[in-house]
Amino acid sequence: MDIRLGDNQYGKAETRLVRVTRHPDGHEITDLNVSTTLAGDLAAAHLVGDNSGVLPTDTQKNTVYAFARDGTGEIEDFALRLARHFVDTTPTIRRARVRIEQYSWERFGHHSFVHNSGTRTATVTYDGAAATVVSGVDDLVVMNTTGSEFHGFHRDRYTTLPETDDRILATAVRAQWRHEHAENEDWQDSHRGATGQLLEAFADTHSLSLQQTLYAMGERVLRHRDELVEVRLSLPNKHHFLVDLSPFELDNPGEVFFAADRPYGLIEGTVVRDGAPDPGLAWW
Amino acid sequence: MDIRLGDNQYGKAETRLVRVTRHPDGHEITDLNVSTTLAGDLAAAHLVGDNSGVLPTDTQKNTVYAFARDGTGEIEDFALRLARHFVDTTPTIRRARVRIEQYSWERFGHHSFVHNSGTRTATVTYDGAAATVVSGVDDLVVMNTTGSEFHGFHRDRYTTLPETDDRILATAVRAQWRHEHAENEDWQDSHRGATGQLLEAFADTHSLSLQQTLYAMGERVLRHRDELVEVRLSLPNKHHFLVDLSPFELDNPGEVFFAADRPYGLIEGTVVRDGAPDPGLAWW
Amino acid sequence: MDIRLGDNQYGKAETRLVRVTRHPDGHEITDLNVSTTLAGDLAAAHLVGDNSGVLPTDTQKNTVYAFARDGTGEIEDFALRLARHFVDTTPTIRRARVRIEQYSWERFGHHSFVHNSGTRTATVTYDGAAATVVSGVDDLVVMNTTGSEFHGFHRDRYTTLPETDDRILATAVRAQWRHEHAENEDWQDSHRGATGQLLEAFADTHSLSLQQTLYAMGERVLRHRDELVEVRLSLPNKHHFLVDLSPFELDNPGEVFFAADRPYGLIEGTVVRDGAPDPGLAWW
Amino acid sequence: MDIRLGDNQYGKAETRLVRVTRHPDGHEITDLNVSTTLAGDLAAAHLVGDNSGVLPTDTQKNTVYAFARDGTGEIEDFALRLARHFVDTTPTIRRARVRIEQYSWERFGHHSFVHNSGTRTATVTYDGAAATVVSGVDDLVVMNTTGSEFHGFHRDRYTTLPETDDRILATAVRAQWRHEHAENEDWQDSHRGATGQLLEAFADTHSLSLQQTLYAMGERVLRHRDELVEVRLSLPNKHHFLVDLSPFELDNPGEVFFAADRPYGLIEGTVVRDGAPDPGLAWW
Repeated sequence: MDIRLGDNQYGKAETRLVRVTRHPDGHEITDLNVSTTLAGDLAAAHLVGDNSGVLPTDTQKNTVYAFARDGTGEIEDFALRLARHFVDTTPTIRRARVRIEQYSWERFGHHSFVHNSGTRTATVTYDGAAATVVSGVDDLVVMNTTGSEFHGFHRDRYTTLPETDDRILATAVRAQWRHEHAENEDWQDSHRGATGQLLEAFADTHSLSLQQTLYAMGERVLRHRDELVEVRLSLPNKHHFLVDLSPFELDNPGEVFFAADRPYGLIEGTVVRDGAPDPGLAWW
Repeated sequence: MDIRLGDNQYGKAETRLVRVTRHPDGHEITDLNVSTTLAGDLAAAHLVGDNSGVLPTDTQKNTVYAFARDGTGEIEDFALRLARHFVDTTPTIRRARVRIEQYSWERFGHHSFVHNSGTRTATVTYDGAAATVVSGVDDLVVMNTTGSEFHGFHRDRYTTLPETDDRILATAVRAQWRHEHAENEDWQDSHRGATGQLLEAFADTHSLSLQQTLYAMGERVLRHRDELVEVRLSLPNKHHFLVDLSPFELDNPGEVFFAADRPYGLIEGTVVRDGAPDPGLAWW
Repeated sequence: MDIRLGDNQYGKAETRLVRVTRHPDGHEITDLNVSTTLAGDLAAAHLVGDNSGVLPTDTQKNTVYAFARDGTGEIEDFALRLARHFVDTTPTIRRARVRIEQYSWERFGHHSFVHNSGTRTATVTYDGAAATVVSGVDDLVVMNTTGSEFHGFHRDRYTTLPETDDRILATAVRAQWRHEHAENEDWQDSHRGATGQLLEAFADTHSLSLQQTLYAMGERVLRHRDELVEVRLSLPNKHHFLVDLSPFELDNPGEVFFAADRPYGLIEGTVVRDGAPDPGLAWW
Repeated sequence: MDIRLGDNQYGKAETRLVRVTRHPDGHEITDLNVSTTLAGDLAAAHLVGDNSGVLPTDTQKNTVYAFARDGTGEIEDFALRLARHFVDTTPTIRRARVRIEQYSWERFGHHSFVHNSGTRTATVTYDGAAATVVSGVDDLVVMNTTGSEFHGFHRDRYTTLPETDDRILATAVRAQWRHEHAENEDWQDSHRGATGQLLEAFADTHSLSLQQTLYAMGERVLRHRDELVEVRLSLPNKHHFLVDLSPFELDNPGEVFFAADRPYGLIEGTVVRDGAPDPGLAWW
């Protein structure tokens, strides 16, 4: 046969789980968006509609809810538990990836909560032997109102951008960092530490380009967090253009800006610790 | 002629303005989304394309940026200034409405900021004589994990909902409150006070229905804020359904929930102070 | 008591219903988003949490599905049937509004469909005595690449916009038209006719402003559809800016445009037939 | 040094271009969303803020507009032209990826257009030597109202899903197909042909699982389009749940469905022609 099945995977995306823990002195909530993806010996399903090796995506959803009954723990642990379950108990499944987004809430009062911005993420992959854990943040929106320059860039005949030694630098950080080990980590401490380093590096770096800021953020995380071996960052450059007020006989000394939607720059990069273990399935 | 022009208005929607104030000891930012709407003697534009009475929407945008050069102040003041300008200086314009959304940022370091959730709003209307000011919040997402019941409701042949004496109550508050006066208010203090009362009432109210919570929230604001005369609330009931874990031989004592997207309940209501002045254009 | 409940309403928003009709020679689908809103004697629910007058929003959703069992018919008829049911059978309910969005699908083959753009809408209000029917379209995105001018407008010190005698005019039409009668209409024929007139008027009108185009569109509908008495239009001006290619030693004779997101103009207006019956609750 | 820069790339995302071609007998429009991504010797920018090798993303945007002056041609050709330009004329750039989304419009009248659903895509990668071209469609929403079964699947203790021999199968097709050659293709004919085969396969396949439908769609494209060597599909399973009307003493013989938002199944797979050339950078 001259046509064949290549790589494939399937799963249940965006199972929305809210877990309440009812302590006498105050409730806790865990608000998650869980996506599970499985791969393995699924050729029969694709080629002849034989579903005997297919664990339904509905079952994957059920498993998320059933496992939550005992508590989720940190999202890295919950993802590990789910990934191992799917691979270890389903005969056809060779690999599982579980990605979890955790939304942020702040408690006020005994059982009342207000939603905050900032999403914590975890992506676990497991192949029956080894697991890898990637933690991260999504949509962490930050801005520096000065301390950012951009000049000395390559110019060609289509370049009209003026050089600047003072601009706004704003981005929505999507960052993921790979753990060296998948076991016995203090995931919460690690997450707080890495996120704090990202923010501090963003604030501290006098930036000559968003690329430089990106590298500084990734490097800072690795310098301070020994448990991590690789950081991947995706940083949209959310352009803020100084408005020309001269038609109104006004100057504009870096005060009035237009926040543009599209297009936007998109800077993506990786910072790695030398000797980091092979990522294996981590970024699958 | 048997067909005629009825009510009409026009303006510039969603002018995105970021204003930086560069204090020596730390920057400040004001991040706004400004929409201006004008109405007046605009029949000629509609009927024969005579634009002599039309102030271009592009000019409205320019005005937002030019006025920001002197600082915006609180959004209520900025909206008042813009609304009065458009009506008082454009011969054909009889009414202006300016709606501003202000996004929340928290400063960390000298000139670095991180975005927070929660949007502050102001809507000002002005007709050449009187102005009205409505302040508010948008997308303030809150949840109570207990203290909410729903029973004793009207049943008909299509009613299947079980009664409950313990459910999650979650909503994204959209609230607007009308000020008695349009002048000399401490808008910031008023906004903080009203928002705080909304949150406290949400947390404190043992709820027998979202309608009851809505009324309690509006009433609390009016009880504590003498400068306000009317509160309008729009509260989507963000349903959280208890997951049936019995197929897995698990109980679920109010711990594991599915957060649903659609459909959702939508509860809307108004709480008014007796003797409140006529709203006039306030809710136009 | 010095604080009281004002206007209020509640309902179930965005009940997603897909109705399949299985004809032997080919299936039909009706894909709807139904929002129901009720108002009446609901003070007890707000003030003391007495829900005896509250028909749960869950029941409203059930009713939508149960009524669909017999077929929906045209969305105006389905909305009328639902609105009358809620008011006529629920003791506390005095008014109902039912808004339906219908998504467009094209059949290919016996039971296969592909989704099209363009949303048909209907909004019915009923107060126990009279019903009003408003039909419409939403998000009908259209563009004229010439035949649009904008000049002769009012200029003030903040006006910088150059006059133009040839621009792109693009908008996402949101239009609603009120029927004179709520009974015995051929809703489908009316909808096709009105939508066709809107599109033809958009194409035929040499435009001196979007206001002029708006009026032409509304007037055209009323001229050709005797069953309609009022048209309301909301037209965002989706700006397309000619790109300045002169830095690259290129001209740009109306060929290369930047399609901007924000800000956008927003033109809203009403065209009415003289002697139209009072709208009553139609635009509630 | 123990920490180093890994993979990185940067570019301008979502440059919105509308190109008008003014034929005497009727205008044509090309409505594009262009994202350019470059990679190469960019370590200096990251490590020390030396931008001498960075072609600004603003310049990339300018290039898109300037190149459009001569016409875009088919999006595959436009992407090839841009990708080659960036690599061949920028000393530091070794690879370029250009992704273009083309939105669909239908002309009515001489210069009037109405927007349709369905997005055509092209992704070109070029490394200074070889180019690869991937074409595709995005958000092509389709539904079969019968002819879909799902049974015989693997069951574990978390499986509750009933087997079915008649369900709705609905998805939003995201498909991409790789061309064997990057030159001298009739891109438009290829796109129409491949899209038509996808739709026909969706309609014709009696489906025992969405996986089977996925494979049938990909295989059909390769059977009929000799110029293509690989098809990748991502198919969300947009669940439509039969509503239980029995509480209302109604049956529901496959007629009334609830269209759910989340969670959804997500089925992804590849179909390849044996002997297909190495993809190289195609899926970078």
